[in-house]
Formats: sequence, C-alpha cells, structure tokens
Amino acid sequence: MKQRRRIYEGKAKILYEGPEPGTLVQFFKDDATAFNAKKHDVIEGKGVLNNRISEHIFTRLGALGIPTHFIKRLNMREQLIREVEIVPIEVVVRNVAAGTISKRLGLEEGTPLPRSIIEFYYKNDELDDPMVSEEHITAFGWANPQEIDDMMAMAIRINDFLSGMFVGIGIQLVDFKIEFGRLFENDTMRIVLADEISPDSCRLWDINSQEKLDKDRFRRDLGGLVEAYTEVARRLGILNENDAPRPSGPKLVK
Amino acid sequence: MKQRRRIYEGKAKILYEGPEPGTLVQFFKDDATAFNAKKHDVIEGKGVLNNRISEHIFTRLGALGIPTHFIKRLNMREQLIREVEIVPIEVVVRNVAAGTISKRLGLEEGTPLPRSIIEFYYKNDELDDPMVSEEHITAFGWANPQEIDDMMAMAIRINDFLSGMFVGIGIQLVDFKIEFGRLFENDTMRIVLADEISPDSCRLWDINSQEKLDKDRFRRDLGGLVEAYTEVARRLGILNENDAPRPSGPKLVK
Repeated sequence: MKQRRRIYEGKAKILYEGPEPGTLVQFFKDDATAFNAKKHDVIEGKGVLNNRISEHIFTRLGALGIPTHFIKRLNMREQLIREVEIVPIEVVVRNVAAGTISKRLGLEEGTPLPRSIIEFYYKNDELDDPMVSEEHITAFGWANPQEIDDMMAMAIRINDFLSGMFVGIGIQLVDFKIEFGRLFENDTMRIVLADEISPDSCRLWDINSQEKLDKDRFRRDLGGLVEAYTEVARRLGILNENDAPRPSGPKLVK
Repeated sequence: MKQRRRIYEGKAKILYEGPEPGTLVQFFKDDATAFNAKKHDVIEGKGVLNNRISEHIFTRLGALGIPTHFIKRLNMREQLIREVEIVPIEVVVRNVAAGTISKRLGLEEGTPLPRSIIEFYYKNDELDDPMVSEEHITAFGWANPQEIDDMMAMAIRINDFLSGMFVGIGIQLVDFKIEFGRLFENDTMRIVLADEISPDSCRLWDINSQEKLDKDRFRRDLGGLVEAYTEVARRLGILNENDAPRPSGPKLVK
C-alpha cells in the first residue's frame, strides 16, 4: 500500500493512483489548516469523520441525480473516486452572513441573506484564493459559460438538499464551499461534484444553541473540533461503535 | 448663485439644485483623492479640465445613442444635468491589467487581458467599495437583472467608443469606471450614464511613451497631473486659449 503513486497532496487530503485507470484513492488527513495554511494543526480523528460524512453526503446527492466523482468508501480514511480535471474555482453558497462576506459587505454574522448567494473564488494559494466573477472566469478560460451554468445549477440543488438534510437534525446550513471537476467518459465531458463536503467545508450552526459545529472551531480557537464533527456524524446516523473516534477528553485546539 | 441648495457633495464634485425641476448643476472641484480619500490634495485647474473632457465624451456618447444625464455645460466648472437616482454600483471595464486587478490576480501591470472584463464595485466608502458580483447586486436589490444587463451592454459600447476615440489620438484606454442612474420620465424609468468620464476615472497611457495621462499620476506621486490632463484635452481638440488652464510651471503633486 505504501508503494502506490501519490498524485497530489493538498492541505487536508492526498490523492493516490487508483486500482484501475480513471480512478483515484482520496485519503483524508487529520491536518487542519485555515487562512491559506497560515494556521495549521493536526487533529486526531478529523480525517476519519470527514471521510464518513462526505461519503454520506455524496452518496445521497448521487441518488438525487447530481453527478459526483464518488465511487465508494474503501476504509476509515480512504474513498475510491473517479479521476477528474478539477475546475480551479471554489463555488461558495451562502444562506446567512458569516466569515468573509460579513467583513466585505459589513453584515453582522448571523444576518440571514435576502436570498442564497453564490460566490466564486479562484483556487490559487499564492493569491489567497481571490473572489472572482463570471467575467474573470470566462475571460481567463478557467471555465466556460456552460460549465458555470452547470456548476451554479448544481450548487443550488446541493444547497437545497443540504439545507433540508441539516435542518432535519437541528443544524442550520450557513454556507458551504464545493469544487467541481471535468469527467471525461466515452468521448464526452461533463461537470461533476468533486472534492468533499464535510464540516471542514461548511458552516454548520446548532439551531437551538447556535453552537458552531464546523471548522470555525479551529479558525477561531474555540476547541472541541472533533467533538463537534462527531456530533454532526452522530446526528446524521452514520457512526457505529467500531469506527467512531473516541477522543480521550475535550481536545482543545491551539 | 451662492444661495442655491447643495444636494450632495462628493470627493471631486458638488451637485446643486438646478434651474428647473428634474435638473441639477454638477460642479467640478479641484480636489483630488485616492485610496478612498485617505490621500487628498487640491490641484488647481483639474476641475476645469474634467468638466470640458467629460462634456466632450458625454456629448459624443449621446450622439451615438447612449442615454446620459448630461444636458449642457454651463461654464468653466459646471454642467447642467438631469437628476437621476444613482445606482450604487461602480462599473469598471478593463482592457489591460493595472491597479487592483493586477494585485488580485497576480498579473503584471500592462498585461493585455484575454478580452475586456467588466467588474462591479459596491459604492460604499466605509467598506472601501468592495468588489461584488451580479449575485450580490441582485440579492441585495442594488440593481435588478435587467438593469445589470443594460449597464453591461452600455459599458461595452462605451468601451468600444472610448477605445477608438483615444487610440485615434495616440492613447491606450487601459480601464475606466462609470456610474449609472435611474431617470424617471413620463411614468417610465430607464438607466442612463451618469457621473463623469475624465482622466480621474480612466487609465490612459500614451501609446508611444507609455506615460500615464490619468489620476495614477496623483495616486503614485508622479507629479504633472494638470499637464497630463491638459495634454489629453489638447489631443481631443477641446482647449481654446480662453479656458485652458495655464499652469505656471510643472506642478509636483505631493
């Protein structure tokens, strides 16, 4: 297993060559980073939780007819995925003001937005992932208008599904980030959902307590990250005794 | 004249009540500001030049069928305009990378863009005029989709006309900022070009020398701002001996 070829290593995941052409293995690390990796820590158990939560969500989105790169979960930290060409755009859907939009537009965190807002960020660490618009994306050829339309339509459907799924377990979906890839199959190309959807890439607030159940616990030094992710997984009904991480006590994130 | 009601004072212009309902007088000040007025100076003669240059451009755009707020120039520093409700969006058209897009997307200044790019900025001094997309504009109701379409279509036509006009006098139109307003007339509303178009709101580079003939001379402490604006007016053929400002020598801008 150690000998297989590493295709790409990101901040929270590694991609390895898969067992068949056109497949990859996506490995979930325990690394937590924020602010473009200026802040970094290792949080034991996070990768296991994100692998399970993302599997759960991608499986259900697939059943809903949203094409994804996901094939199946292989083990506690890995899933088998289709190899895609990642579109270098992060698509963010926001329902409630939090994070950068609060600062940029002077909105108090927690302010419901008049309607869901889709934003695009250019994936580029050196430039700190700058916000861009369809104008920049099409001018520089990062995606074409049809691809943007496809991504926006899927983003809206994903927001509808996730909002419903989370509200059903007492969690408000504040915002989330998704990525897409180009899947080449039978001489055709289509846009599919890629990467992951997990508390690393969503803002999730407990509806009753307003407690944050997402990566803001790490970004803002609130501690208890694994406990929060575990709680999300527990409410989603996807933990069993064998693979739930058992933190030995409250883990305060530095 | 001193008794008339002041409707609004901006960084570089004042709007007074006009002689008839639905009209205003737009007064061009000599004040130069940059970086959201963190930098400020008074540059004698600038207002006179911008009044003349903007008159020249708005007149020609009107003749081309682009609706504007401009009625006529009244005197050296003032023009009569139609009263409009300003859309709180600055529309920027870029042909060559310079200024914020260079920093944001890591493009060397002077790099031609793959095609002209339209950007939107929310007019809000407290927030430093943040860049926004159609999503934010429509979600917050700053303009509706039809108004955005109208503004983009006019922005493209204005870019075509200005690019041609300037290239004809040896000047490259790098980028420019325009504003629009809602004109209410006979129970209908339409979007018209408002504000001004002048070397304060454009980046203009001499094609041969690459010398900057615009407000970057002030932003970047290059000096010779009035001389540059005078040169633009001279090449446009709109100066005569009576109203050309006569700088008493090179004016170095602090």
